[in-house]
Amino acid sequence: MRLVVPLQGVVQGRGGLVLGSLLPCALFYVLQLYLKRKNRSSPSSSATSVSELPAGIPRTPSRGLLSSKTSTGPAPISSRAASVAGPSDSPYYVGFKKCREDPYHPASNPNGVMQLGLAENQLSLDLLRDWLAEILKDLALDGEEGNLSVSGLATYQPFDGLIELKMAVAGFMSHVMQGSVSFNPSRIILTAGATPAIETLSFCLADPGDAFLVPSPYYPGFDRDIKWRTGIDLIPAPCRSTDNFSLNIATLERAYNQAKKRGIKVRAVLVSNPSNPVGNLLNRETLYDLLDFAMAKNIHLISDEVYAGSIHGNEEFVSIAEVLQTQDFDRSRVHIIYGLSKDLSVPGFRVGVIYSFNEHVLSAASKFARFSSISVPSQRLLVSMLADSKFITRYVGQNKKRLQKMYALFVDALKQLGVDCVKSTGGFYCWADMSKFIRPYSEKGELELWAKLLNVAKINITPGSSCHCIEPGWFRCCFTTLSEDDIPVVIERMMIVINNHNDYH
Amino acid sequence: MRLVVPLQGVVQGRGGLVLGSLLPCALFYVLQLYLKRKNRSSPSSSATSVSELPAGIPRTPSRGLLSSKTSTGPAPISSRAASVAGPSDSPYYVGFKKCREDPYHPASNPNGVMQLGLAENQLSLDLLRDWLAEILKDLALDGEEGNLSVSGLATYQPFDGLIELKMAVAGFMSHVMQGSVSFNPSRIILTAGATPAIETLSFCLADPGDAFLVPSPYYPGFDRDIKWRTGIDLIPAPCRSTDNFSLNIATLERAYNQAKKRGIKVRAVLVSNPSNPVGNLLNRETLYDLLDFAMAKNIHLISDEVYAGSIHGNEEFVSIAEVLQTQDFDRSRVHIIYGLSKDLSVPGFRVGVIYSFNEHVLSAASKFARFSSISVPSQRLLVSMLADSKFITRYVGQNKKRLQKMYALFVDALKQLGVDCVKSTGGFYCWADMSKFIRPYSEKGELELWAKLLNVAKINITPGSSCHCIEPGWFRCCFTTLSEDDIPVVIERMMIVINNHNDYH
Repeated sequence: MRLVVPLQGVVQGRGGLVLGSLLPCALFYVLQLYLKRKNRSSPSSSATSVSELPAGIPRTPSRGLLSSKTSTGPAPISSRAASVAGPSDSPYYVGFKKCREDPYHPASNPNGVMQLGLAENQLSLDLLRDWLAEILKDLALDGEEGNLSVSGLATYQPFDGLIELKMAVAGFMSHVMQGSVSFNPSRIILTAGATPAIETLSFCLADPGDAFLVPSPYYPGFDRDIKWRTGIDLIPAPCRSTDNFSLNIATLERAYNQAKKRGIKVRAVLVSNPSNPVGNLLNRETLYDLLDFAMAKNIHLISDEVYAGSIHGNEEFVSIAEVLQTQDFDRSRVHIIYGLSKDLSVPGFRVGVIYSFNEHVLSAASKFARFSSISVPSQRLLVSMLADSKFITRYVGQNKKRLQKMYALFVDALKQLGVDCVKSTGGFYCWADMSKFIRPYSEKGELELWAKLLNVAKINITPGSSCHCIEPGWFRCCFTTLSEDDIPVVIERMMIVINNHNDYH
Repeated sequence: MRLVVPLQGVVQGRGGLVLGSLLPCALFYVLQLYLKRKNRSSPSSSATSVSELPAGIPRTPSRGLLSSKTSTGPAPISSRAASVAGPSDSPYYVGFKKCREDPYHPASNPNGVMQLGLAENQLSLDLLRDWLAEILKDLALDGEEGNLSVSGLATYQPFDGLIELKMAVAGFMSHVMQGSVSFNPSRIILTAGATPAIETLSFCLADPGDAFLVPSPYYPGFDRDIKWRTGIDLIPAPCRSTDNFSLNIATLERAYNQAKKRGIKVRAVLVSNPSNPVGNLLNRETLYDLLDFAMAKNIHLISDEVYAGSIHGNEEFVSIAEVLQTQDFDRSRVHIIYGLSKDLSVPGFRVGVIYSFNEHVLSAASKFARFSSISVPSQRLLVSMLADSKFITRYVGQNKKRLQKMYALFVDALKQLGVDCVKSTGGFYCWADMSKFIRPYSEKGELELWAKLLNVAKINITPGSSCHCIEPGWFRCCFTTLSEDDIPVVIERMMIVINNHNDYH
């Protein structure tokens, strides 16, 4: 219409409307055809060459003339797609890209980029391999000794997970939390990873324009997992180094009130426990306070506990579910995110968990689960694995020892470099203070050091600014993708950059 | 605030604001505690019993009094969750529920509900079983004869699918389309089923409040898959029995203009080919017209081709991709939905495909794919299966013969009952005309017959109204979950209801 209307003023008189509508369309179409033919050299790409049409199909090359409006460019994509379609310039993703393009290998690519930005645990893959090698020998389909049935693998199954796997996952969660809580399988919704678990839960708890409060520094993936498609915003509530980055209810209160003043509806507070990226735990008292806060504000509480079983320190992990067992709170506002990617080291299996005490959320999430179902053969394999309690006990125990050892080695090595880490208890990372090495003392200085570490030292770590940390100079360093032999390499590479960086300024 | 403000008027004078705010909050909190203690008998559920707190954790039972606002009920869930949380009264879902609760089995539950509402193909599961049984014997992990590696199974892999599986799926798509098209693996995004494929694509093409045009009758799942979370609306463009429910561009044009008048932005037209629920195909000329239409309106064209390989008639299936190979259109507005659930009968594996000619959409969809990734062990299994070209050729050939046979038997049996079906070519269903059996001739009459078939005859079929068919009395009957022996049972049960239904009125 935009094309046609101005021309109606040019073609006046009787028939002006018709001519004013049809003529420009026809002209425009012919012009388009001309330009296309001119620009394309491929013999198969001419729209008007009737001889190339499949035999027997009459084509009227003039059919486009019937269109009341011609196209004026590429069809627009959605604004949510447009905002993610381009390459990301966030350090978190830039670092990943570098690692993908030039991955370090001690033998085959010793000058490649070392990945300390990805929270993946490769310390215990050998245990998984041994178990899988054994089980593969015994798998058999139907028949007399069959332990699998084709209809149990290939046909439609409940989208929110097999009940057998829900039961097995509930048991595993309880196991990694050392029996301090028991989980009810009917409160579990399984999704294809913790990423869709948090997104699905978000879809359930808030509408576009609403917001969640998130103590910062927080996991950079939350911005992506929650904000991209749900239309929900995240509001950081900044924690500080003077408190060891521990959660403080007064900070939450302040962030809540500021949001309210801006007219934003806060629907939930989202915490990670163990904290990602800091690695410290929420103690019982803080959990009580969080529940009080959620109650007082009439909002939800989401506890991301994906590292609950990846504890390397001596402090006790307390699940929000454990607190609810002993205290009388409104449970319907409490939801836990879990998954097998961290504690069982199987991110490739894509198993996430929504554990909710809210029946309406469970009902909606079980329906939304059709958008992120776990492939059934993998579910069956995991049912077998988790049912093997001897293996699971051995795995959890050994994995913990390896985590402890690597954490101690890595933090010690950083210390020798002059880098201190916050004393942490869980997770695959440490939260390292490099503020004394940055000039200027600002996000700019932090990102300059990060860029040198990535491009010169070829070490990918996550800068605090990607985690919405308000103090510059902090970095998340994941150590579970490293071998012990890699640690001196990391330290040596870091040292050169840190020394040069300091000399330079 | 709603609680506080009215009471400020009651507590007048100096200090009225403070007393009016704090007093009701405190009173309300104490009342809540009292009611909770009264209602709960469990000794572990008292909020004020300090003796039950874990040792060493000081708790102030009065801390809640510090809250500036107390909770006034359950925390609200999102409107999108609330709208799906309750049970659905749509016949499409009511029928599923009945089948789940009381499934027919010829031996163990001969009076159970027969499932003709679910488009799942169980005709060739034996072929899958045999292949899986063979492959399971040969699977081995690492080692000398290993064909699997643990890091290739357990660790993070690209969220939008393994490149090996993209290549295999591209080959399979070409195979089931009899080599008429070749597909480029780099245009493929893999998702955990066709359901997240269509949702992800929708997220990419339109924003909340925008709409897609969909020729009706259409697959009832579209309303769920597209509307639930994206905020996009679907506008039916009604096709009619006088045209054999074939797509008509004039109808699309009308629906488009009406939407425009109402101020709605139409972003795409969505077709299924073969049509679901009718089963007829879009011929080449209609595909050209659709492309013209999309071009003229500057909108996208989505072609759902999940049944492309499930052709049981003699007409030739033409993919929109085939037309694009020979014609010069703006490809960037064309997107295909595919999956392995129908043509390979593995819905439990959850493999969906977005095939797009638009680089921006591919880029955004590959990022959104993290919300619906396919579990990697299942991907590896499918890579093996699809690479076995001897098996795939045999499977596709035999499955087609079985489909043809069942379609002919079932449609013939319906005919003997006096029920005619639209002549169809693809899909797992037929589109049956029972309009002469309904009284009144309206949606009400249709749903009365549907309810009797479900509750009396215990046969679940999908009424046309669930598919937005504007003519009453049409039903989608899936025949691929039946065995040949089931057909006489279905017909006998239907006959009793149809005869009684007629006599009754």
